[in-house]
Amino acid sequence: MTAAPADAGEGPLAIICGGGALPFAVADAVMRRGRGVVLFPVRGWVDPQAVARYPHHFIDIGRYGRFHRQAKAAGCRDLVMIGTVLRPALRDIRFDWQALRELPAVIRMFRGGDNHLLSILARLFEKRGFRFVGAHEVAPEILMPQGAIGRREPSARDRGDIARGVALLSAIGRFDVGQAVVVADNYVLAIEAAEGTDRMLARIADLRGEGRLRSAAGAGVLVKVPKPAQDRRFDLPAIGPATVAGAARAGLAGIAVMAGAAIVAEPAEVGAAADRAGIFVTGIAPDEGAP
Amino acid sequence: MTAAPADAGEGPLAIICGGGALPFAVADAVMRRGRGVVLFPVRGWVDPQAVARYPHHFIDIGRYGRFHRQAKAAGCRDLVMIGTVLRPALRDIRFDWQALRELPAVIRMFRGGDNHLLSILARLFEKRGFRFVGAHEVAPEILMPQGAIGRREPSARDRGDIARGVALLSAIGRFDVGQAVVVADNYVLAIEAAEGTDRMLARIADLRGEGRLRSAAGAGVLVKVPKPAQDRRFDLPAIGPATVAGAARAGLAGIAVMAGAAIVAEPAEVGAAADRAGIFVTGIAPDEGAP
Repeated sequence: MTAAPADAGEGPLAIICGGGALPFAVADAVMRRGRGVVLFPVRGWVDPQAVARYPHHFIDIGRYGRFHRQAKAAGCRDLVMIGTVLRPALRDIRFDWQALRELPAVIRMFRGGDNHLLSILARLFEKRGFRFVGAHEVAPEILMPQGAIGRREPSARDRGDIARGVALLSAIGRFDVGQAVVVADNYVLAIEAAEGTDRMLARIADLRGEGRLRSAAGAGVLVKVPKPAQDRRFDLPAIGPATVAGAARAGLAGIAVMAGAAIVAEPAEVGAAADRAGIFVTGIAPDEGAP
Repeated sequence: MTAAPADAGEGPLAIICGGGALPFAVADAVMRRGRGVVLFPVRGWVDPQAVARYPHHFIDIGRYGRFHRQAKAAGCRDLVMIGTVLRPALRDIRFDWQALRELPAVIRMFRGGDNHLLSILARLFEKRGFRFVGAHEVAPEILMPQGAIGRREPSARDRGDIARGVALLSAIGRFDVGQAVVVADNYVLAIEAAEGTDRMLARIADLRGEGRLRSAAGAGVLVKVPKPAQDRRFDLPAIGPATVAGAARAGLAGIAVMAGAAIVAEPAEVGAAADRAGIFVTGIAPDEGAP
C-alpha cells in the first residue's frame, strides 16, 4: 500500500462510482489536493442530485466504448473505482461494440470470486491506456488509522476475539469469500459471504433477539480485514455509521478493522456514532492479528 | 467411525434427547435390534406426547445429580446424546449439588466452540461410570450411504462446487465453526456459523429473491461435512426433509454430505422429497472432496 500524493500534472482523475457516500468523500479529498475529478456514476446506483455538483457522465455496465471515449476526451488517464455495485446477471448487460470485442475475457470474469473479476477488469482497462489507482492512494485520509476512533477501547477479551477473527479470515482468504466475521468470547457467531456485512450483523441481532446466542450482549467483535490476495486498489473493506449502528443492534462490544487497510469515509461521524452506541471502533496493527 | 452392533447384554441404552425426529429414529432402530431404551428428553425441547410411548424421564440442564440417579436406577451404562438443544446462557441454568461440584469444568465448557463443550461433557459423564456412544454406532442405518438417494445425480459443475465446499470447510474446521457451506458455480454464497443450516438456506433464498445473487437458480450445492476434529459421537451433521425443502427454496442443484459421516433420519422421505423438488442428495466418498 503506497500513499503517494496525487499528481496534479496527470490530468483529472476519473472516478467510476457505485452507491454510498464513499465516492463523494474520495472526490472531495482529491479536489482539496488541487486535482480535478470527473465522476462516472454507474446508472441506477448513484443519486443524480448528489452527483450534480461534480463534472460527470453516467455510464452503463457493458458500454465500455462510450466510457472510453468520454474519459479520453476529458483528459483522464488514472481511474478509481469505488462504491457499491452488485455484479449484474450476464444476461442483463447490453454490450457496446468495443465491449463485445472483450467478451471472452468478460465471460471469464463471471466465474470465480470477486477478486478475479476485478483483476481482469483492471487488465482490460490497462490494455486501453488507463491506469487503475486505489482510492486510498489518491485520498489517504479515508484510511482507518491505528487505534480507537471514539472513546472506547477493546478489552483483553475483545482482543482475543479480534485475534481469532483475523486468524479465521486468513484461513478462508484463498477462497475469495467474505472479509468479515463476528467472534464473541472466542466463539464464531457469523462468517460473511454473499450477504454482505450489514446483513450478517442483522442476523446476529435476530439470533440474539430469539435467545439463540449464548453470549450476553456487550461481548463480540465484528472483524473486517482485506482478503490476503485482494487487489487493494478495488476492494478494501469499508466501514461507516451504518456499520456502527448494525454492530450496536447486534449487541457487540465493537468493531476492529486493519489500520491502513480499511476505508472509513466519515471518521468523525463514525467515532461519534460509536460513542453514542457505547461500542469501540479500532484500527488494529497487522501483527495484532497473530493468535 | 466404528459401527459395532448393539450389545443387548449391557442394559438399556440411555438416550439424552433434544428436539427433532432423530432421537425417535435412533430409539426405534435400537429397539428393533432388541435392546431396551430409556429416553431422557431435555425439558422444553421435546414434545411430551411424542416421548410418551418410550420409558422416559424429563431432565433439566444443570441437574446432573438427578439424571445420574435415574439412569443408574434404570440400569443404563451407555449414553447417546442426540437432537437439537441450544446451549443455554450460564445464568439461566440452575445446578443441583452434584453438578455444582463440577462447576469449574462446566464453566470452562462455556468458552470455546461446541466441540470443546461436548468433549468436556463426555469426560464428566465418563468419570461417573457412563460411556458415551455415537447414535450411528447403535443405529448404523441412520448414516448416509454413498451415492445419490433419489433419482438425480450431481453434474460435473456440481462436483466442482462440492470439492470447493469440502476444501473450504476443511480450512475452517479448526475454528470449531459451521459444518456447512453453499457454493454455486465455484463462488461461495454462504458459510454457516451460529445460525444453523436451515437459516443459511433461507438467506440464500432471500438474496435470490432480491436479485442479489448472480448465479441462476438450479446451480449451487449445500455441502455439509463433519468438522475435522469433531467427536462423531455427538455431533454428526444431519439432513432431513426440511433440509431438502430449504435447498429447493434456495434454488440449489442439490445437497452433498459425507457418506458414513452424516445422519439421515428418514432416507426414504428424503429421497422422495428430493425427487419432488428436482434436486440431488448425494453421499460423497471422503476422497471426492479433494480439490
